[in-house]
Amino acid sequence: MSVPDLPHVPATPGSLMRGEIAEQPEVLTRLNGQLQQPLSDLADHLRSHRPRFAMVCARGTSDHAALYAKYLFEVVLGVPTGLTSPSTFSVYGARVDFRDSLVVLVSQSGSSPDLLATEEAARAGGGLTVAVTNEPSSPLARAAMHHVHADAGPERAVAATKSYTAALLSLWLLVQHWRGEDAAPADAVAQAAAAAVDGVAQALAAEPATVELASHYRSTDRIIVTARGFDYPTAREAALKLTECCYLAGQAFSGADLVHGPIAQVDARTPVLAIAGPGRSGRAMAPVIEALAARGADLVVAGEWAGHTGVARHLALPSAHLPEELRPVVDVIPMQLLALTLSLQRGIDPDRPRGLAKVTRTW
Amino acid sequence: MSVPDLPHVPATPGSLMRGEIAEQPEVLTRLNGQLQQPLSDLADHLRSHRPRFAMVCARGTSDHAALYAKYLFEVVLGVPTGLTSPSTFSVYGARVDFRDSLVVLVSQSGSSPDLLATEEAARAGGGLTVAVTNEPSSPLARAAMHHVHADAGPERAVAATKSYTAALLSLWLLVQHWRGEDAAPADAVAQAAAAAVDGVAQALAAEPATVELASHYRSTDRIIVTARGFDYPTAREAALKLTECCYLAGQAFSGADLVHGPIAQVDARTPVLAIAGPGRSGRAMAPVIEALAARGADLVVAGEWAGHTGVARHLALPSAHLPEELRPVVDVIPMQLLALTLSLQRGIDPDRPRGLAKVTRTW
Repeated sequence: MSVPDLPHVPATPGSLMRGEIAEQPEVLTRLNGQLQQPLSDLADHLRSHRPRFAMVCARGTSDHAALYAKYLFEVVLGVPTGLTSPSTFSVYGARVDFRDSLVVLVSQSGSSPDLLATEEAARAGGGLTVAVTNEPSSPLARAAMHHVHADAGPERAVAATKSYTAALLSLWLLVQHWRGEDAAPADAVAQAAAAAVDGVAQALAAEPATVELASHYRSTDRIIVTARGFDYPTAREAALKLTECCYLAGQAFSGADLVHGPIAQVDARTPVLAIAGPGRSGRAMAPVIEALAARGADLVVAGEWAGHTGVARHLALPSAHLPEELRPVVDVIPMQLLALTLSLQRGIDPDRPRGLAKVTRTW
Repeated sequence: MSVPDLPHVPATPGSLMRGEIAEQPEVLTRLNGQLQQPLSDLADHLRSHRPRFAMVCARGTSDHAALYAKYLFEVVLGVPTGLTSPSTFSVYGARVDFRDSLVVLVSQSGSSPDLLATEEAARAGGGLTVAVTNEPSSPLARAAMHHVHADAGPERAVAATKSYTAALLSLWLLVQHWRGEDAAPADAVAQAAAAAVDGVAQALAAEPATVELASHYRSTDRIIVTARGFDYPTAREAALKLTECCYLAGQAFSGADLVHGPIAQVDARTPVLAIAGPGRSGRAMAPVIEALAARGADLVVAGEWAGHTGVARHLALPSAHLPEELRPVVDVIPMQLLALTLSLQRGIDPDRPRGLAKVTRTW
C-alpha cells in the first residue's frame, strides 16, 4: 500500500493508536517517578504565590484534561476555576486582569497559536502561567512561566491517548503536592498513582469486552455519552474519540444536563453510554440511568452497575481501589479501546482520519 | 383532542412556543425600561465590591446565557470568568473560597435544587451572589444576595425562548452599567438595546426563510452547529433547541474546536449550520467555513456570507446595526423559529416534547 504523503504511518490500520494506548502503563509509571521533584518545587511556588482563582485553557482532547483540572482544583483545593475561551484573546484581544490567578495551559504539542495568545494575555494581565505539554522545547513550554513536562514520549497517532492520561496524572500529582500540609505523605501519593497504573493495565487486559461492545455499535451513527463529576471528562473524551475515530455523531452531556432537555431525543433506537464509576459521581447517575432505562434507550452502563432493569449491556471498569479523583486516568482506557476497535470494525483507519492533522493551527 | 394530564396546553401544536417567540419584542422593550434603575443600583454595588473573578452557574438554555455572560465579563469588563459545574457542590460538597468573586446564577424558574446548592456554597464561601431569574418569588431569587428580575412574563412553553433573550438583555444591561466611567451614556445604552429589539422584530418577520430551511432539514437525524466568540452561545442554543424540539442529534462546536478533531465526522451527508454574524466572530469563522466547504458538507451559513463556493444555502441574519456583543439577542431568533417550524414539519409538538417538564429538579 503506497502512502505517499504520510510516509511514517505503518500500513496496518490503527497500529499507531494501538501501540500508544498500550504504552500507557509505562508512560504513567515513568511520570510517577520523574515528576515528583519538579512538581514539589512548582507546588512550593504556587503555595507561596497563593493563587485565588485558576483558569485552564486547552483544545480538543486536552480540553478534557482541563475540565479534569477544574474539578480537581475546586473539589480538592477549593480554588474557583474556569475554562478559558481562547477566542476571548485571539479574536477579541480582551485585556483581562489575571492578578492572583493561575492560568494553566494544557497542550500535547505546545504549538497551538490560540493557546500561545492566551498565555501571552494571561502573563500580560499579571497571571502566573503554567504550561502542561509533551514537548519541552515547544513555543508554549518556552513562553509559559512554568512548564510541566507531561512526558508521554513522541505521540505519532492522530488520536491522542497516552498524552491525555499523562496530562491527567501530571495534574493530579501537581494537586497532591500543592495541598501542602493537607497532603498525603509522598510515598502514599506515589502508591496511589501506582495503583492507577495497575488499573490502566487491568483495563488494557479487558480489551475483549470492548471489542464485543464495538460490535454492538457497528452500524450506529450517533451516540450519547453521559456522566457526572469526575466521570464527566471521561464521557466528553469518549464522545470525542468516537466522533474523531468512528465518525459517529457523539454527544456528551452531564447527566444533570441530559435530563434537563436533550433526553427528549432519546428513544428505543438511541445508543446511550452512561458512565457510573464507583464513588459519588456514579451514585449521582442513578436517577439519570433510571430515566434513560424508562425511555427504553439502547443503554450501556460502564461501571459497577447492578440490579437495574432496562440496561441492555454493561462495560466493566477496572476495580482498582482508587480515590475517585484518580479514576479518570483509568476509566478512559476502555473508551480509547472502544474507539479504536469500533473504528477498525467500521473500516476506518484511526491513524488516518479524514482531514485531521496532529497539530491544529487554530488562531 | 383530550389532553388529560396537561390541561393548560392548547391543542394546536407549537402554539405556546410560537406565542412566546412572538412576544420577545414586547418583553425586551419592557426590560429595557424597567431594568435601567435596578441595574444601575446593582452595578454601583458591584463596582464598590470590585469582584476580581466571576463564576456563572446555570443549566440547559440558561447555560448559554451563562456562556454569554462569560464573554461579556471578560471581553467588556476584563474580569476572568468561569462556568460552574453544579456537581462540584451538589455531588462533592466542595468548599470553595469565593471571596472577591461574583457568582451569577441564571435560571428561568429559580427552582433548580443544584443551583440553590451552588448559591448556598458560593455565599458560604464569601462570594457575592446574584440571581437572574424570571420568578422574583422563587427560592433562588430569595436566597441570592441580589436578584435581577429578567421579567419575561410567565413562560408556559417547555422550550425556553423569551426567558433566554430576557436573560441575555438583562446581562448586557448589567454590564453596561457596571462599566461605570467607561460606560456609554444611559440614553445611548437604551438606544442600543432598542436597536436590538428592532433586530428581533426584523428576524421574526423573516420567518418564511426559516420555514424553507426547515424543509431542507426535514429528514435529517443530526446536525452540527458551529460558531465562535459571541456567536457561540447562539450555536449552542440552536443545537439544544433542535435536539429538544426536533429530536435531532445536535452537536455544537466552537469553530476552532471543530477543526481540531470532530470535523473528521463531516462528509457530504453531514448537515452543518455555521453562524458567522457581522463582526469579529464571523470573520474568525472564514477558515472553518472553508474547511467545511472543502469537505463537501451540507453547509448552511447564517450571516452575511458571500462569495464562497461550497455553501449550499444561506440564512440571513437581521442586519440591524448593533454592537457585536448584542447580536446574540437577535441572532437566536431565526434559530428558535427553525426549531419550531422543523419540529412541526417532523410531526412533533414542541409544546409536548417526550419526557420533559418545565422545571427539571436535578440534584
